[in-house]
Amino acid sequence: MHYFCGMQNIETYQDAFIAYLEDFTVSKEPKNLYEPINYILQLGGKRLRPVLTLMTAEIFDSNALKAMDAALSVEVFHNFSLVHDDIMDDAPLRRGKATVHEKWDINTGILSGDAMLIMAYQLFEKYDAQTFQSLAKLFSKTALEVCEGQQYDIDFETRTDVTIPEYLKMIEYKTAVLVGAAMKMGAIVANTSKENQNRIYDFGRYLGIAFQLQDDYLDAFGNPETFGKQVGGDIIENKKTYLYLKALEFSDEDGKVAIREWFGSQPENPSEKIEKVKQLFIGSGAQKATEDAVEIYTKKAFSILNSLSLDEDKKAVLKEFGMGLMTRDV
Amino acid sequence: MHYFCGMQNIETYQDAFIAYLEDFTVSKEPKNLYEPINYILQLGGKRLRPVLTLMTAEIFDSNALKAMDAALSVEVFHNFSLVHDDIMDDAPLRRGKATVHEKWDINTGILSGDAMLIMAYQLFEKYDAQTFQSLAKLFSKTALEVCEGQQYDIDFETRTDVTIPEYLKMIEYKTAVLVGAAMKMGAIVANTSKENQNRIYDFGRYLGIAFQLQDDYLDAFGNPETFGKQVGGDIIENKKTYLYLKALEFSDEDGKVAIREWFGSQPENPSEKIEKVKQLFIGSGAQKATEDAVEIYTKKAFSILNSLSLDEDKKAVLKEFGMGLMTRDV
Repeated sequence: MHYFCGMQNIETYQDAFIAYLEDFTVSKEPKNLYEPINYILQLGGKRLRPVLTLMTAEIFDSNALKAMDAALSVEVFHNFSLVHDDIMDDAPLRRGKATVHEKWDINTGILSGDAMLIMAYQLFEKYDAQTFQSLAKLFSKTALEVCEGQQYDIDFETRTDVTIPEYLKMIEYKTAVLVGAAMKMGAIVANTSKENQNRIYDFGRYLGIAFQLQDDYLDAFGNPETFGKQVGGDIIENKKTYLYLKALEFSDEDGKVAIREWFGSQPENPSEKIEKVKQLFIGSGAQKATEDAVEIYTKKAFSILNSLSLDEDKKAVLKEFGMGLMTRDV
Repeated sequence: MHYFCGMQNIETYQDAFIAYLEDFTVSKEPKNLYEPINYILQLGGKRLRPVLTLMTAEIFDSNALKAMDAALSVEVFHNFSLVHDDIMDDAPLRRGKATVHEKWDINTGILSGDAMLIMAYQLFEKYDAQTFQSLAKLFSKTALEVCEGQQYDIDFETRTDVTIPEYLKMIEYKTAVLVGAAMKMGAIVANTSKENQNRIYDFGRYLGIAFQLQDDYLDAFGNPETFGKQVGGDIIENKKTYLYLKALEFSDEDGKVAIREWFGSQPENPSEKIEKVKQLFIGSGAQKATEDAVEIYTKKAFSILNSLSLDEDKKAVLKEFGMGLMTRDV
């Protein structure tokens, strides 16, 4: 791995991180505990969270190498949560490959996941005591919020009275706080001011909320050619997304009945359901409201970025990253 | 809770710890995440590990109050491991009450367990940065070893070539290192020398191994009136304990065949099986070898205790505690 000198582009950070991740491969005994960990960590993905940690460290005048262990901790934690969530969701596939509990079994998924959560903490051990404590505190707070977000998500499946603020809190905890924490860890390693640490956290958190709302949007209205997942997947699974909650909020009684009926059905061929629900989303104004919400949270993120006293070229790197995330094919 | 002044007896530590534990009750949202945590933490038990943390802190001239959060962390971690192990073992009961995954469901057990592991780390946050790092490092190392021990235990179920050293390593990791770590945490909080910290760790670790070997022994040869669990439970479940492994080691070919046959059977009425297996354990010399092993590890523990430069009355407290553990009704 080469030594960084000044800000790099995203691919450079990705490549450097992946090289570091490969060196991390655990060849310890017992095999049945550590092989599933190597498997899930090597499954791929865009490694966005660790790249954000590395980028943030450099933006605040540290270097990416120093932030590698923190970045790896974020990625190991993220994959821990995937392993345990996939058990809870009974998901057979992850990135097109068998999930850990499918390839091995549920007990392996539980235990290997537990080990990953512990290993994520161990990755802070090379930092000095003060940095270690700051990182571990932020990590624990974030990890607990991710658990709470997952619990809210499970609870919402069987509730019929979920409000928009509750939904926003759920996606904030389940997804967005880890984006904020990934960036704040880079800021902590760089030893920048508490104010900078907190602002970059909020930037990441708002960007994370915008990203998740856009994910809800694209699931129904994305381009099937480029979206990656099956368009309409949330509708097929009767998921109560932002689109669904807004459609209920904006519809009259007849509209509410229609939406609730579709979301109680599981037709063998879902094409008609997907089409009708999308029409209800559009007609009710839920589609527009979701677009607006994505824009609002993206703007919140960028306005925090503007308030940071940083060189314009550094802000530009983060802005480019954020824009790249938010202008996925609609 | 009263303020400690000087060494107390075990019941005093237990009572103080239980009072502290009750104040810890988590009344946070989401309820479905935190109620199972309160439930398992209130199920009872002798609280031996946290009591060891408190005692050790006082032995090294600190006070038990200062060590309360470390003691609670040990207990929260221990209960985390029970919640996840009970899922893996498909156990319906824990201390005579429904296990978490039975009372709620498996997903609740997984997620509440994860939250407990994180909360165990958070309990170190009130200590200064140096102490925090020492505690968290020891905790991570220990927690990962407990996972490895659990994995070895699972692996051994389907292996036929488990050796005595492998078995000893398994019980050391699964059970004994946490006893050692509980004591070392008290020593870290008391800020005693590294040498004292390591010796008290080894004392706890050897005592933990002796305790687990004695558990194997009592499961077959304990007094049914006082043992607490069903005598012969391990034999019914074909568990490969120290008794079993030693019996195989000491038997001739006919004896090995007989043992293996009994340990491949699951008779509806197990009384004859239990009786015959116990005779094989006695006849082969495995019973005696297990008694000897308990004594050897107890002596190792006490010889480390003797090597510590401590007042005799402090050593006496630990000796009394150890003797209390090891002279359970045989």
